Amino acid sequence: MTLKVDGFRFGGVAAKIKASGKPDVALLVCDRLASTAAVFTSNRMCAAPVQVSKKTLSRAKGHARAIVINSGNANACTGAEGLKDAQAMAARAAAALEVPAGHVLVASTGVIGHRLPMKKVNAGIDAAAASATANGFDRFAEAILTTDKRAKTASVKFTVGGQTITLLGCTKGAGMISPNMATTLTYVATDAAVPPAALDAALRKATAETYNAITVDGDTSTNDMIAVMASGAKSNGPLRGANLTIFGGALRDLLDDLAHMLMADGEGVGHVVTVKVVGARTRAQGQLVARTVANSPLVKTAIAGGDPNWGRILCAVGNAGVPVKPDRVDLAIGGVAIVKNGVGVGGNADKAAAKAMNAPRYDFEIDLHAGRAEGRYLACDLTHDYVTINADYRT
Amino acid sequence: MTLKVDGFRFGGVAAKIKASGKPDVALLVCDRLASTAAVFTSNRMCAAPVQVSKKTLSRAKGHARAIVINSGNANACTGAEGLKDAQAMAARAAAALEVPAGHVLVASTGVIGHRLPMKKVNAGIDAAAASATANGFDRFAEAILTTDKRAKTASVKFTVGGQTITLLGCTKGAGMISPNMATTLTYVATDAAVPPAALDAALRKATAETYNAITVDGDTSTNDMIAVMASGAKSNGPLRGANLTIFGGALRDLLDDLAHMLMADGEGVGHVVTVKVVGARTRAQGQLVARTVANSPLVKTAIAGGDPNWGRILCAVGNAGVPVKPDRVDLAIGGVAIVKNGVGVGGNADKAAAKAMNAPRYDFEIDLHAGRAEGRYLACDLTHDYVTINADYRT
Repeated sequence: MTLKVDGFRFGGVAAKIKASGKPDVALLVCDRLASTAAVFTSNRMCAAPVQVSKKTLSRAKGHARAIVINSGNANACTGAEGLKDAQAMAARAAAALEVPAGHVLVASTGVIGHRLPMKKVNAGIDAAAASATANGFDRFAEAILTTDKRAKTASVKFTVGGQTITLLGCTKGAGMISPNMATTLTYVATDAAVPPAALDAALRKATAETYNAITVDGDTSTNDMIAVMASGAKSNGPLRGANLTIFGGALRDLLDDLAHMLMADGEGVGHVVTVKVVGARTRAQGQLVARTVANSPLVKTAIAGGDPNWGRILCAVGNAGVPVKPDRVDLAIGGVAIVKNGVGVGGNADKAAAKAMNAPRYDFEIDLHAGRAEGRYLACDLTHDYVTINADYRT
Repeated sequence: MTLKVDGFRFGGVAAKIKASGKPDVALLVCDRLASTAAVFTSNRMCAAPVQVSKKTLSRAKGHARAIVINSGNANACTGAEGLKDAQAMAARAAAALEVPAGHVLVASTGVIGHRLPMKKVNAGIDAAAASATANGFDRFAEAILTTDKRAKTASVKFTVGGQTITLLGCTKGAGMISPNMATTLTYVATDAAVPPAALDAALRKATAETYNAITVDGDTSTNDMIAVMASGAKSNGPLRGANLTIFGGALRDLLDDLAHMLMADGEGVGHVVTVKVVGARTRAQGQLVARTVANSPLVKTAIAGGDPNWGRILCAVGNAGVPVKPDRVDLAIGGVAIVKNGVGVGGNADKAAAKAMNAPRYDFEIDLHAGRAEGRYLACDLTHDYVTINADYRT
């Protein structure tokens, strides 16, 4: 099935920025000025394209016509020259598409500390613009990858007011995948009509519940970006009220699918574990506990080894900086109750939990018995492959 | 050279709590009521002995006669029964030494979630009390170990008012060492006379600069404890003013030595890296940047691989949540300037830095050019051995 969404064309070409010769310039184009929202890395050392795109999107008050992306070179830590290169990429795409440069966002991913090969980049942008088609989403999704094992795309459809709305998304690379950095790029195109402020609010909410609740190694890249463009091609006027809520839920589901694919595609990742915290006093505390467990290297190596080492999980709970009553905490691993009131259940629980940990996806459920709020984080294992990829990268 | 300090006896015996038959009950005894200060784990799931010792030390207003420690079993996540066992350990040691139970602190380290074998523990305490001698420090230091490769002891001497003051210390186990938990235990005995409040202040300051500025895997154990006992055997009255400052500096130096030994003894640790941050706006910001770099798995795998991947270090700097101007940041690795104003220096810098990273100890020096404050953290590498030890522990 070809992935399509009304109002958009997609391009993806190989411009030899990557030594491998794989596709490395991607172009997402809307046939009209689209409501556009984006969240960027919180890293203070953010790369040139992030700086440029932030400014462009703000000046255009949440609108854009296109996003141009290269893989193979992150254009990060490249100083004033790098900023000019990022601006030049946007200008080149604008010229090729005959749209204003102020309506083109730009992103990069790959090795850092090297100038972009602008001659190759420019040729790639021209070729991507010339070949962009409504059927090109798979090529687009391919061209944003770095060391990902496969392209990751997903779509969601829903019907409001008799019209079927489509959201089409793709994503690339988490920490364990990228030896060099850990850049996450995610793009969503939809034919819904959503005003910029509402689109921005929906994206921030959906991101908080999905992409901002996954962890591979706790690092945030210099280049991370999630953007959504809404063409409004399928609409009797902008979505409001309950329909807007349905759109937000669909966006969240799409990002959740993509986030799971992203985790599972990590080199050496054998298990994706949902750390669910219930009975927290506040959502913030629940999130903090879930995040601390998901980030603990001792927990992550236990996941890798399939070892139901509940002491490490409880230890991580205690390290979250959240008030916790040790003798109230319950824990289940893959549905197996293994700790009750802070003490190991004993019996066959360890054996049953070890068996549950063979599954590629399972849950830790931690009940703090302190309130009614919840938290959730996705975790994955810390494996030999992670060390191999990241320690031996340049040797 | 036998390590001795006036006013103290030390015991260490094998009580078969450990299957290996290695020493596992340790006893530190002062011949009078000693000023005593301690810092305990900040983990909210703290173990029974930590709960008991905190209360005992507070009730005795910073005084103690002895500390009894077992290795091989952490007495953590053991509920109300575990609390009784910890109290019973203190009572047994008190009876054997003929001192009040309210003057005995207790600590445990080892596997968690199992009740202490109290019959063996009691026999061990009796034997340790019977055999404790002024020359027993090495045996004491041996009996607190878990999977450490060797005992870690250090001493510092200084002279004030014509008297030579001795500080004697030992330490055990960081994260990478202990597959099960990561407990750090550290004990210091001194013949200085220091009132409890001053001893507590000196210990907290010295700990902040040493043990609270090291990271192996970012986890804090349920059982961590650092305690210092001051017999006052060598004194013409309590240390004050400048002499107290000298004592604080000596305590800091001793803990710094022990912290370095602790890091270097980790399984698979090939490199201990001092992350120095200069030019920070505040000390807190400098510490936060140093800590974020030291904790980053991508930085730690680069240390393991001897890869001068400065992009990862800058990325971690940007992740600290501290305002940073990317184009002001300088970085030197092992004395080799590799980044200037946020951009790679190029030339032979990478090669020279890679060479420097072969050393067992070297520095990252990060200049933020934002102020005059500094920060410092010790980091070590993330290796295959770490994953092997922690993932394959129970399989």
